[in-house]
Amino acid sequence: MITYEDFKKVEIRAGKIVSAEKIPETDKLLRLVVDFAEKKELVNEAGEKSLVPSVRQIVSGISAYFPDPAVLVGKICMFVTNLEPRMIKGFESNGMLFALSDENGNFSTLEPNSSIAPGTLAK
Amino acid sequence: MITYEDFKKVEIRAGKIVSAEKIPETDKLLRLVVDFAEKKELVNEAGEKSLVPSVRQIVSGISAYFPDPAVLVGKICMFVTNLEPRMIKGFESNGMLFALSDENGNFSTLEPNSSIAPGTLAK
Repeated sequence: MITYEDFKKVEIRAGKIVSAEKIPETDKLLRLVVDFAEKKELVNEAGEKSLVPSVRQIVSGISAYFPDPAVLVGKICMFVTNLEPRMIKGFESNGMLFALSDENGNFSTLEPNSSIAPGTLAK
Repeated sequence: MITYEDFKKVEIRAGKIVSAEKIPETDKLLRLVVDFAEKKELVNEAGEKSLVPSVRQIVSGISAYFPDPAVLVGKICMFVTNLEPRMIKGFESNGMLFALSDENGNFSTLEPNSSIAPGTLAK
């Protein structure tokens, strides 16, 4: 059993998959680029700051379920977004796909309906 | 930022909604009965133990999105299943619907595809 505070620590957000490709020389890994409607601050040569759209790279071990990873592009799926970044086979992963799989080889992403904008937090 | 261990403490499972009804004299609350393919041990008068199917009652503040709660019956949605039970307006709730809503009034459940059995853990 956990408390509501334990649950609230975990951020799971809707993200739109911008690109998806197999990582060469791996069996299972896809490299996803995912849009959570985030912005980051950039400083130009004149020292001026501006906010620009920013996407995340997320590595996921789901290649077996997507022989053609291109079918994922444009989908809005759910991702854990506040995990510490980690390196997977030389690729930095800034999040984790949040999905379902069972011992029979069934797999499902979790796709909200079309009213939901990228970046929306599940709760 | 959280660790993977923080994330793993939270159990979010697929559950099939068996019944859904508005709680009288409340604005927002639905009383859901949800099947996670769980069983509980019963002892009969002879002292014999047996495992019988068990469902959970879950109270959720989503009545505004479902004027006719019957549309929820039969759907498989996602629920946080290891929160401590709590009492809401006199009804015990043994879990929490895990869904999305935003400040514009948009709402979405998260429904896995049909290959996923009730009780399956998201990860």
